[in-house]
Amino acid sequence: MNWDQVFASRASRMKASEIRELLKLLAQPDIISFAGGIPDPALFPARAFQDAYAAVFAENPGAALQYSVSEGYPPLRAWLAAHMATLGIPCTADNILITSGSQQALDYLGKLLLSPGDTALVGWPTYLGALGAFNAYEPHYDRLDPETNRSAADYAETAAAKGGRVKFAYMSVDFANPTGRTMDRAARERVLEMADDLDMAVIEDAAYQALRYDGEAIPPILALEIARRGSIEECRTLYCGSFSKSLAPGLRIGWVCGAQRAIAQMVLLKQAGDLHTTTINQMAMDRVARTVFDDHVAGLRRTYAERRDHMLAALERHMPKGVTWTKPEGGMFVWLTLPPQVDGADLLAQSLKTQRVAFVPGGAFFADGSGCNTLRLSFSLADKATIDEGIRRLGLLLAA
Amino acid sequence: MNWDQVFASRASRMKASEIRELLKLLAQPDIISFAGGIPDPALFPARAFQDAYAAVFAENPGAALQYSVSEGYPPLRAWLAAHMATLGIPCTADNILITSGSQQALDYLGKLLLSPGDTALVGWPTYLGALGAFNAYEPHYDRLDPETNRSAADYAETAAAKGGRVKFAYMSVDFANPTGRTMDRAARERVLEMADDLDMAVIEDAAYQALRYDGEAIPPILALEIARRGSIEECRTLYCGSFSKSLAPGLRIGWVCGAQRAIAQMVLLKQAGDLHTTTINQMAMDRVARTVFDDHVAGLRRTYAERRDHMLAALERHMPKGVTWTKPEGGMFVWLTLPPQVDGADLLAQSLKTQRVAFVPGGAFFADGSGCNTLRLSFSLADKATIDEGIRRLGLLLAA
Repeated sequence: MNWDQVFASRASRMKASEIRELLKLLAQPDIISFAGGIPDPALFPARAFQDAYAAVFAENPGAALQYSVSEGYPPLRAWLAAHMATLGIPCTADNILITSGSQQALDYLGKLLLSPGDTALVGWPTYLGALGAFNAYEPHYDRLDPETNRSAADYAETAAAKGGRVKFAYMSVDFANPTGRTMDRAARERVLEMADDLDMAVIEDAAYQALRYDGEAIPPILALEIARRGSIEECRTLYCGSFSKSLAPGLRIGWVCGAQRAIAQMVLLKQAGDLHTTTINQMAMDRVARTVFDDHVAGLRRTYAERRDHMLAALERHMPKGVTWTKPEGGMFVWLTLPPQVDGADLLAQSLKTQRVAFVPGGAFFADGSGCNTLRLSFSLADKATIDEGIRRLGLLLAA
Repeated sequence: MNWDQVFASRASRMKASEIRELLKLLAQPDIISFAGGIPDPALFPARAFQDAYAAVFAENPGAALQYSVSEGYPPLRAWLAAHMATLGIPCTADNILITSGSQQALDYLGKLLLSPGDTALVGWPTYLGALGAFNAYEPHYDRLDPETNRSAADYAETAAAKGGRVKFAYMSVDFANPTGRTMDRAARERVLEMADDLDMAVIEDAAYQALRYDGEAIPPILALEIARRGSIEECRTLYCGSFSKSLAPGLRIGWVCGAQRAIAQMVLLKQAGDLHTTTINQMAMDRVARTVFDDHVAGLRRTYAERRDHMLAALERHMPKGVTWTKPEGGMFVWLTLPPQVDGADLLAQSLKTQRVAFVPGGAFFADGSGCNTLRLSFSLADKATIDEGIRRLGLLLAA
């Protein structure tokens, strides 16, 4: 059987994610890992989840174990609509689709919007998993950089020359994966203006939104757009949220919030894609969100802020000259820029061998293959002593 | 915002599934429903699931709530490999990918194999959800009918004339959704021969495999192919299994079993599509499968067999002349063929209004829009008295 002959053309663009492959390494106990956007399992509200599953079984096991509607569990959609309102996004449950994690939201948004040859605007760098999800729909990428003055006409012409149309701009807005950077309000407004000029959608990835440690919260792009237009139904922004960083990733529950016209079309993709998100997990998540969300997230913020501070201080102590890094106001990541001649992937191979420290080389986050002299460190999983020791070892390696 | 202008071309092929829309109607308490392929929630092993979630929390809540590998939870993959061996399919855990229900396996198989313009061979009729999943990848359909003598060359030429290649044949093999029919051994062997001639994959949908009530089990197509070739690694058949009909659908756990070359490529789709199937549900399902699978399925068979017998007897009593139906050896469905002038969709509208009986009109199961004078009845959900009353009312309507 010659499988290559029957695979679809998209198969050539589906490559193993370095992050996911690294996850397998983390099982080795002597590795200090700053890889992966992984929450600390010691911080999960395990007791609340345990109680929630027990309550679901006590109350309605038949419903929890049964098929359910593609849109999502109605009480959870209602809770999320109320949650979105607290972020400046007034909406109803009909504006919410529950997905199997926000990674699935990205996959379905690619599926909804991209025909082969269309163009997606993304940051250089951007979230690796978004590129992975979109690649299946064979787009071209163009660089989204709200700092430059490149005209909408130039974007449109570039996309047309490649045989398609600019369909959307994708961005992680708060404490972005991988850079830890936050888009300021002016940059968010500029994206909305460019979206109007290009008549494209805006995909706002807010996976880390709840994890702000200092500085003032900036309204989501969708909130800014509603403020301009008066109603979510008039908006082109599709907001992707996730419980993976705030409560727990193992249940695979995320959501998309946007105009009903787009959500209804995504419900059809969901129906055809996996029928619906797991019923029992939605029922348990609904209980946990209602009882502990705010308090739990406040606790996470305190712990992760300390780890961030600790990592930034260790970087100051141990990094040689020529290495620079971001100072994130939240999230899980610090982004290092190394001298131009240092290759992050080579450094990882060396680091695993001689220092037993893991991180993610930055090149994979660039759709154009640039950025080889960068790397991503996560401070979410390690305690302070481990952060000190890992950064010390990394500094030794970089100084050599 | 003109959404139609930014939707991908595939959006025009994504339509609401009548079955899923019907699920919403079932909330009305006075409806007698023979719609949906829904297991009876009263038969779920709820206690075993309750104990399994409790044990998972007692043992390792951190792992259960955390991210996990895209391939699936290793102990569950190992259990499934052993389970497949009992069906005549010797394999290892590396031949198994866990999916978010077997619907997702169908979606990912379409994604793996279909470029726009390729051809998929399907039955007339076939599982509506498979057509929905494949439609997203914009194939043409050609009719798979192992009873006819149409040559492989004719299939290949027809596909080439449409701008693509025959990529796979899809079939539900045992007590198929929607017809309840089972492919005999000779038909399975003929599909393998045609697959060799066309150098295509074979997708074997075995969702109902465990629910055989009488007659002798026929080996899965993948087992027949392994018997021919000596090893699963040489095989072109990809077997899709599901716990939804045997244990419970609400956890969304299914699997694909096949050659490692194809499974490894599907793991990349899974990684990009939703990272992985929910960790906690895989851990709970692993426990339940190990403790109750065989006994539980034996109990289901007894109950569903009685309901099937009861529905067949009621059809004998109440159906007017000119209506015929299948006699399934297992599964959940009986397939009715009405006189040619009766339209199943019109009949449903009338039935809901005057008789309060729901079923699925058959036309949606035909890729070419034929089959309007058919309908699907499920006997899985109703007790005997309800079956009697529902079939009596349907007979009245058809006699009128």
